Amino acid sequence: MVKENEPCGGLEWRMNMPDGSSKVLEPECISESRYCRALKGLFARFVSTIWGFIRKAWNLGAAEPKKVMHCLKVGMALSLVSLFYYMRPLYDGVGGNAMWAIMTVVVVFEYTVGATLCKCVNRAIGTFLAGALGLGVHWIACQSGEKFEPIILQVSVFLLAAAATFSRFIPSIKARFDYGAMIFILTFSLVSVSGYRVEKLFELAHQRLSTIAIGASICILTSMLFCPVWAGSQLHNLIKNNMEKLADSLDGCVADYFKNDTEKAQDSNKVMLGYKCVLNSKATEESLANFARWEPTHGGFNFGHPWKEYLKIGASLRSCAYFIEALNASINSDQTAPDFLKDHFSKFCIKLSSDASAVMKELAVVISTMTKSSKIDLMIEEMNSAVQQLQDAMKSLSKQPIASSVTGIATIVEIVPLVTASSLLIEIVARTENIAKAVNGLAEKAEFRVESDTKTKESQNQKVITEEHKGDKKTMMTLEK
Amino acid sequence: MVKENEPCGGLEWRMNMPDGSSKVLEPECISESRYCRALKGLFARFVSTIWGFIRKAWNLGAAEPKKVMHCLKVGMALSLVSLFYYMRPLYDGVGGNAMWAIMTVVVVFEYTVGATLCKCVNRAIGTFLAGALGLGVHWIACQSGEKFEPIILQVSVFLLAAAATFSRFIPSIKARFDYGAMIFILTFSLVSVSGYRVEKLFELAHQRLSTIAIGASICILTSMLFCPVWAGSQLHNLIKNNMEKLADSLDGCVADYFKNDTEKAQDSNKVMLGYKCVLNSKATEESLANFARWEPTHGGFNFGHPWKEYLKIGASLRSCAYFIEALNASINSDQTAPDFLKDHFSKFCIKLSSDASAVMKELAVVISTMTKSSKIDLMIEEMNSAVQQLQDAMKSLSKQPIASSVTGIATIVEIVPLVTASSLLIEIVARTENIAKAVNGLAEKAEFRVESDTKTKESQNQKVITEEHKGDKKTMMTLEK
Repeated sequence: MVKENEPCGGLEWRMNMPDGSSKVLEPECISESRYCRALKGLFARFVSTIWGFIRKAWNLGAAEPKKVMHCLKVGMALSLVSLFYYMRPLYDGVGGNAMWAIMTVVVVFEYTVGATLCKCVNRAIGTFLAGALGLGVHWIACQSGEKFEPIILQVSVFLLAAAATFSRFIPSIKARFDYGAMIFILTFSLVSVSGYRVEKLFELAHQRLSTIAIGASICILTSMLFCPVWAGSQLHNLIKNNMEKLADSLDGCVADYFKNDTEKAQDSNKVMLGYKCVLNSKATEESLANFARWEPTHGGFNFGHPWKEYLKIGASLRSCAYFIEALNASINSDQTAPDFLKDHFSKFCIKLSSDASAVMKELAVVISTMTKSSKIDLMIEEMNSAVQQLQDAMKSLSKQPIASSVTGIATIVEIVPLVTASSLLIEIVARTENIAKAVNGLAEKAEFRVESDTKTKESQNQKVITEEHKGDKKTMMTLEK
Repeated sequence: MVKENEPCGGLEWRMNMPDGSSKVLEPECISESRYCRALKGLFARFVSTIWGFIRKAWNLGAAEPKKVMHCLKVGMALSLVSLFYYMRPLYDGVGGNAMWAIMTVVVVFEYTVGATLCKCVNRAIGTFLAGALGLGVHWIACQSGEKFEPIILQVSVFLLAAAATFSRFIPSIKARFDYGAMIFILTFSLVSVSGYRVEKLFELAHQRLSTIAIGASICILTSMLFCPVWAGSQLHNLIKNNMEKLADSLDGCVADYFKNDTEKAQDSNKVMLGYKCVLNSKATEESLANFARWEPTHGGFNFGHPWKEYLKIGASLRSCAYFIEALNASINSDQTAPDFLKDHFSKFCIKLSSDASAVMKELAVVISTMTKSSKIDLMIEEMNSAVQQLQDAMKSLSKQPIASSVTGIATIVEIVPLVTASSLLIEIVARTENIAKAVNGLAEKAEFRVESDTKTKESQNQKVITEEHKGDKKTMMTLEK
């Protein structure tokens, strides 16, 4: 090998250019060392890509340690189930069918307990139904002679697979039994088709069911006993967080509009755009609510907790978020109202938005503490009186022209942005009342506790913030205002 | 059995009530016939439920015959793959591993070609990688003695399963290789664990790969050759339809507002609420765009068609839909402007909304015909001049009070709903321009045809409506206006 930077035997070819400069022609040995450098560069880029990927993954893991825990749980469940292979007495019990237990663990183990339970139940029902039906069809095929047997089996596979596939398009089945329908097709095909060859069908069915039961129970135990992630709690927290984000966005938007340009802080942008998460959370909410139904009692949630009410709250949050989007856009538009008008309106608008966001935050506390609030009605009344004040302010504009040192009287075109923002704010208040109604519906159906009198007095000076610490143990922190 | 309606031996027990009426005490035999009736009732309800379900399914099938076709295709693919069991020469070739071919078909066959291809590629790559790694680990474990073998295997299963599970949380991997990661875990566990028992590992791996290849190719062929449903075409049509729905909703909302109460038709409600589909189509669009990338050239779409541009158009459509939601709500609010003001504004607002919806409809035609429009710039200019007219109308309000036979002069509170609706309309126009930009971006990247001059003249009198007939054969229908 030629070492880098070493002249290639001292010989040099030089080419003189017309402009007086000269260029050294590179002999092969130097270009070879170039290849080395290019290779090194490639390798360095590869390493840096990998390193970037690892760092990204590390950040993800640090941000959500529950996800890392889930990965370890999957590894643990697989190690547990693979013991069936290594331990002679266990292996002799289930034989080569231990494969199905591994497959069950890999396919069924999901992030939340509810999703895991849903898949387990689906897999068990699908396998059992299809197995029974497959054995029935196999028996009928056996009775009808050797000639018709494959025909009957083929036709039955075709018809049932088509019917089960069609059922997966029906929304009510898709929501709950999509996986079960797939397992049904799989098991029915395997049983009815392999029945043609394998003689000991009953034994096969029995072994398959028992290995699936082993895999499923390992999954359920692992997911429920070690740092369980409940779909219900996730949904509960998602709704609560979305409500807080909405409140912060509303506050941020309105405050930003009435601030002077110099006061506007760049870092408030992230808070202001929090409502965007709410716009796109429908699918997540629906799947979480769907899985939460399967979960047993945990934390403060009983089996049969009214999860559908959370979807209603989510829908009302979203319909409020649409208006915040509209408000945000109209605030960022080119048209701006003259400053003296802004000053006139600012206190009413800021009062209204802070009232509305206080209601939302109180509702978030209601949800997170699962306690009915005694002051929410008062707060809504106050919010509505703020609406009245804003409307009065608009009325006063028409009656007595506002004096300004420069323009004298405001024209209609000048007040358009303010009128639009104000009426959007009023719409947001109406939406906030809808959110309150939806939360009230949840509080009634889930039988939230009623705040005790002593607590009420305390809560006027203190704000209760609930944080979920490790699992579902809830620690109450009281922060002085 | 006791027949119904037959008196039970003629004996009757009668109870006289205080109010003079009397009641026959029912002997057991009559209550038995009651049970019969209750059972019949139950049976009837069961039959009617089933009947209702069948009718619902029939309607679904009639509405989307492509879904029925998909079901038949799944049945066909399964019948094809089960031939491996029935035909002696084929069965001898692959043996009991034919099971994996069936499993592949059931698990991999999806509604669209792109989804099927994506899953096939994922399954193949996942199986191959995990198989190779599993064999490697197995070889290392073999070298390290009988005592360490199970330990090494267990630890490797634990670590790799945890790592692969974690990778499924990383968004970029989740979007494309979620299924592949699952298959990786499954195959690696099966190979490394069962390797401890099964001696002929290489043969097993070879057979598994070949059966998966058989299953996957049957899936791909069936899904591509018989009435293929392309994710790309689906996305293309979804975006086009959403754009048309948005245009219709906008037209409907504004027309509805300015109509008299007597004119308002009930059936227009469905058209007006078309924009609601647009609000919730983000997830569908993203998954279709994700699958479309895997599809080969079909219809007018090449491999490498800029599918991401459709997502941009979708996002701009949604941001427009938020404003239509706000407009719809402010139009349905209790506050209504006085009639004389409505009349004054109606022609400007209706002109503006019909201009904006015309632009959207033209953009939908651009997408569906994949031809750049020569008149779109003119239409946008016209729309912007309509904005100017509306703004002028608002200005004129402040300069010369509008005469009305009843009130004389409008107060600011009275014009609030109109001002809000107008400024929302103006925002919608800005959003429509964004949609036009996004469509233009698609037209540039996908190299849409340019409308020829002769066609331009024709198109002034005729409107081109494209319909997709059976598969991707496009028939152009010209309808005289």
